[in-house]
Amino acid sequence: MTKKMFASDNNSGIHPAILEAIAQANDGHVPAYGSDLYTEAATRKFKEHFGESCEVAFVFNGTGANVTGLKAMVRSHQAVICTDGAHINADEGGAAEGFIGGKLLTVPSKDGKLTVSQIEQHLHHIGNQQRSQPKAVSISQCTELGTVYTIDEIKELTRFAHENGLFVHMDGARISNAAAHLGCTLAEMTVDAGIDMLAFGGTKNGLMIGEAVVCFNKDLASELKYIRKQGMQLGSKMRFVSAQFERLLTEDLWLENARHANHMAQLLAEGLVKFPEISLAQPVESNAVFASLPRTKIEQLQKEHSFALWSEERDEIRLVTSFDTEKEDIETFLADVQMIFS
Amino acid sequence: MTKKMFASDNNSGIHPAILEAIAQANDGHVPAYGSDLYTEAATRKFKEHFGESCEVAFVFNGTGANVTGLKAMVRSHQAVICTDGAHINADEGGAAEGFIGGKLLTVPSKDGKLTVSQIEQHLHHIGNQQRSQPKAVSISQCTELGTVYTIDEIKELTRFAHENGLFVHMDGARISNAAAHLGCTLAEMTVDAGIDMLAFGGTKNGLMIGEAVVCFNKDLASELKYIRKQGMQLGSKMRFVSAQFERLLTEDLWLENARHANHMAQLLAEGLVKFPEISLAQPVESNAVFASLPRTKIEQLQKEHSFALWSEERDEIRLVTSFDTEKEDIETFLADVQMIFS
Amino acid sequence: MTKKMFASDNNSGIHPAILEAIAQANDGHVPAYGSDLYTEAATRKFKEHFGESCEVAFVFNGTGANVTGLKAMVRSHQAVICTDGAHINADEGGAAEGFIGGKLLTVPSKDGKLTVSQIEQHLHHIGNQQRSQPKAVSISQCTELGTVYTIDEIKELTRFAHENGLFVHMDGARISNAAAHLGCTLAEMTVDAGIDMLAFGGTKNGLMIGEAVVCFNKDLASELKYIRKQGMQLGSKMRFVSAQFERLLTEDLWLENARHANHMAQLLAEGLVKFPEISLAQPVESNAVFASLPRTKIEQLQKEHSFALWSEERDEIRLVTSFDTEKEDIETFLADVQMIFS
Amino acid sequence: MTKKMFASDNNSGIHPAILEAIAQANDGHVPAYGSDLYTEAATRKFKEHFGESCEVAFVFNGTGANVTGLKAMVRSHQAVICTDGAHINADEGGAAEGFIGGKLLTVPSKDGKLTVSQIEQHLHHIGNQQRSQPKAVSISQCTELGTVYTIDEIKELTRFAHENGLFVHMDGARISNAAAHLGCTLAEMTVDAGIDMLAFGGTKNGLMIGEAVVCFNKDLASELKYIRKQGMQLGSKMRFVSAQFERLLTEDLWLENARHANHMAQLLAEGLVKFPEISLAQPVESNAVFASLPRTKIEQLQKEHSFALWSEERDEIRLVTSFDTEKEDIETFLADVQMIFS
Repeated sequence: MTKKMFASDNNSGIHPAILEAIAQANDGHVPAYGSDLYTEAATRKFKEHFGESCEVAFVFNGTGANVTGLKAMVRSHQAVICTDGAHINADEGGAAEGFIGGKLLTVPSKDGKLTVSQIEQHLHHIGNQQRSQPKAVSISQCTELGTVYTIDEIKELTRFAHENGLFVHMDGARISNAAAHLGCTLAEMTVDAGIDMLAFGGTKNGLMIGEAVVCFNKDLASELKYIRKQGMQLGSKMRFVSAQFERLLTEDLWLENARHANHMAQLLAEGLVKFPEISLAQPVESNAVFASLPRTKIEQLQKEHSFALWSEERDEIRLVTSFDTEKEDIETFLADVQMIFS
Repeated sequence: MTKKMFASDNNSGIHPAILEAIAQANDGHVPAYGSDLYTEAATRKFKEHFGESCEVAFVFNGTGANVTGLKAMVRSHQAVICTDGAHINADEGGAAEGFIGGKLLTVPSKDGKLTVSQIEQHLHHIGNQQRSQPKAVSISQCTELGTVYTIDEIKELTRFAHENGLFVHMDGARISNAAAHLGCTLAEMTVDAGIDMLAFGGTKNGLMIGEAVVCFNKDLASELKYIRKQGMQLGSKMRFVSAQFERLLTEDLWLENARHANHMAQLLAEGLVKFPEISLAQPVESNAVFASLPRTKIEQLQKEHSFALWSEERDEIRLVTSFDTEKEDIETFLADVQMIFS
Repeated sequence: MTKKMFASDNNSGIHPAILEAIAQANDGHVPAYGSDLYTEAATRKFKEHFGESCEVAFVFNGTGANVTGLKAMVRSHQAVICTDGAHINADEGGAAEGFIGGKLLTVPSKDGKLTVSQIEQHLHHIGNQQRSQPKAVSISQCTELGTVYTIDEIKELTRFAHENGLFVHMDGARISNAAAHLGCTLAEMTVDAGIDMLAFGGTKNGLMIGEAVVCFNKDLASELKYIRKQGMQLGSKMRFVSAQFERLLTEDLWLENARHANHMAQLLAEGLVKFPEISLAQPVESNAVFASLPRTKIEQLQKEHSFALWSEERDEIRLVTSFDTEKEDIETFLADVQMIFS
Repeated sequence: MTKKMFASDNNSGIHPAILEAIAQANDGHVPAYGSDLYTEAATRKFKEHFGESCEVAFVFNGTGANVTGLKAMVRSHQAVICTDGAHINADEGGAAEGFIGGKLLTVPSKDGKLTVSQIEQHLHHIGNQQRSQPKAVSISQCTELGTVYTIDEIKELTRFAHENGLFVHMDGARISNAAAHLGCTLAEMTVDAGIDMLAFGGTKNGLMIGEAVVCFNKDLASELKYIRKQGMQLGSKMRFVSAQFERLLTEDLWLENARHANHMAQLLAEGLVKFPEISLAQPVESNAVFASLPRTKIEQLQKEHSFALWSEERDEIRLVTSFDTEKEDIETFLADVQMIFS
């Protein structure tokens, strides 16, 4: 089946250049567990993007990347502040609480973003032994609602966090889409903006399997490899994850893929807002479109198309584009929308 | 670099047929997280081998497979009995203790195997609230020393374990090599022999990334998917793990690969024992050769070849063959041994 | 210092009859860890109150009692539903998340009570492997806001919970105050109303140190003692906790203490509402009074009296009475209120 | 029943002076959770004994004291090295593994003591990401076999440990007995000998309930109170634990109690060795006597006396004396021994 879905960028396959990189890495024996030249090369690429002093640990999936990074930052009696819709809170099956053995302190968010004043709310009990002590903030870039923090917004958060003794973690499952939207480098949005720890997403942007933990804070880097192993995220034939990343970060493939997906989301949104019964629930800043439309129309569309009913209460759907979404997919979808509204 | 190493079967690459299967699965969008036809097909293959009632959960790596399975069997105040050389105890960075939150109860073993009387030693404190309560036994097939339990040995262990209220887990990172050695089916050595939970190895036998938890005990199956997710082992683009397994279990590729590796180990062992200064430390029953030889000779060999110095005290080395080891690799190695001893 | 505080019932001392019971138990050697006659006698008292089939485990403190009970009910990939103000969520330093290794799913509550529709909100993702699976509900009786569930309210919750495969836990740190308010037996409010697991409070009601986990669900009882030990809640000289409980449950001391504390809270509330500037924030149903008054007045009162500023936003204070609060303490406090308002 | 047992010092009651101290602390209201004058006074006593810079956290029981201290020293991917007979490994129901989420690395020991060369064995895999990384050593003073490290032995261990980046923890459940044996101060054996973290035993030496974590390493002290709370070891009416310790450390009550118990053990041992069929299994250096005698004689003695059959294989029993053992108890026991051997 080659039909494209708008259900998730996880439903997409492997970008051809990435698959080619895997095949090319399949050459004889190399040391396992990361002591190979492919991993060295991929690490070098990360350093080109993020600076020489970053530490990189390749892992299997987004949950693994997030939780490995968070565990390096907090102990079990400490807490991570995030939005209640953050992937680490809502969609990772208790992995953070389980592996860290501690608490997430959440705040509600309409646009998926966390604010300084929301962080502040959770700082009232610093020093109170009855309370888990906030030690880190986690933000998602892009957010789970497809919105993108500006660089200034990130800097404001990291400044406040650091002033209050908190590390800042970024869930960058879709970080490339955010960079494409902002038109900035990967570094400008992360290490230069004060981020301490990044989960760098690969899978949603054309990889087969692979995410990376990128640590910008020297104090947090030394234990990362042990945390990764205990978290069951150390791959034996690591070269095949590394080779994917090496390719993704070469010749701006990461950016090209993300730009394309974002562009497809723009086209989709532009098409949808032409219908008076459809309204966008969030600004379209990455590769996701959140839109509200009458429930009966949603149900008609679902017969032919695959996408998520995001909110039953608000009759809101989520449409996600990916590196392989084609203009024709958008047109087909919009044509079907046209049909059900006519 | 195409030189073969004897350091580990983890150093090998992807079997060409497996890589082909990955490429073939790279066709358009499919549902993520295992709700796809590739995963359905791979699961069907497992059921063909292990019977209709088994439950299969695909995961990323061996540690993930072991710990996911173990966690389904024990609670944190309970314990798993295993040898002190068991991979779960010696080589998984505390993943079992961390994810289960409990204790491994170990016994020493010369040949890597666990015996009924050793299990018995750890049952003296059943009912004593001061002690972690044994609830599972874990054995490795093949063992970490390359030896293989006979089916009767497995049955004796599972019978005793079940009589004492213990589940039995099998770390089958190299299960195909064991089946190839015994000349039995995968089922005869596992579900038919009373095993409750199996970590089925793929990576060491030609896969790129992928292991499977196979559960034969209905009582333990229902929570497996949540445990996998919390253990950060749920892959989003799961089809690419599933497709590898589907191929591995087709046309006896699993067996062919394992037989070949075992055969290469036999050739290697036969060549080595011709040297009076070399003695085998373990019977060669799978794809590993453990041999003792003078330390100076080991060091000479290490200049040209990659393998593990297994025991410094006993001047013992470990040589591991894999699906892609070629007769010529053996001959080259033996020629170099010949040279250093002449 | 003999001045009484309204800061917390934890600030009170030991009821004289309880101290006498400790002294009487201090007679020679008895077996440790609960195999003694004092523990047997105390357990018998619990069975008189709660029925023969309950299981009792004495522990040190309220957090220990709550978390031990909860851990017997849920595994780490499962979740406990509670209010966000629940003690287990807000005041136990992440003990539940740490010891269970999982998630609390919270809902806001104005009066400290949980409702069926709030539980329902958290059941939308049953079966979704990305989500911690609700397996228990925890309610506090009295609530952290001094309110008391009616027996019918409890029954409605337990019925709904059981229909949905959820256990029900009761944090009964102040259970005696609730029973005194409702005029019912301890059993009517717990085992007869469908509660599966109870943390029975002793410390706040006149004990020196001691709480009890009371399990009404046979399926959950067998592992309790191991969970208690792993949770560091097994006391060696257990007789001295047991003897306190034996006395507390004899001649209605538990009820007498609670009734007295409740009565003192009533007197306090009656006195406070006479001031037009003071309003009660919650109905006074146990031994706590939540009241709002102008911040400047609060600050004046704090110079002489010890109590908690409960909400800075709402200028709300909490006044807690206890078994040893005297009428004169109330009168002194009210006189000082009178003074600052005149 | 006033008969004394030799089963355990946990079977003894409360020293009269300690009970008196509890009664005296039962005076009106004081702040809960340690912000009271009794806790301040007890802390001052600890500082008198251990120096001004130590940090003290009162907890409920020995397991709580050990695990709280250990958790402050290691993270879950790190490991604690101890003997296999260490209380933390053998008798705490998996509390250390559960609360820390990591591994204990054990070595066998004939006399209960750990040696430098045994620690060394576990340092071979430093830097290997597949292995839990040793970060602390735990020794018991007295050991679980009643033996006592000399100050020089402790210094040798701590020097080696510190040189290798390991903290040193002391399980001092019977520390007073050790100090009494060595004739040294509490400080000489701990802080002055390089110990980083101490579990100071109270319960076995005359307290009702109460142990203390004493931290000598400034880097480890700051998080202790949060770890204690998450570990369910924070008592609300803490004054009643503190008051016991304040009294124990006053007028050398701790030493007097311990000396007496040790003396009783000496008398017992001297009496036992007169029988040619009885041999001591360990030197008697504290308040425990380990002795071997024919099994039939053991069984005869058990009819009248309560003590532990320590080793079934070696027909070894353990007899423990305590602060309240009387000379007459020893004489009665020895008379019965005489009888069964005549």
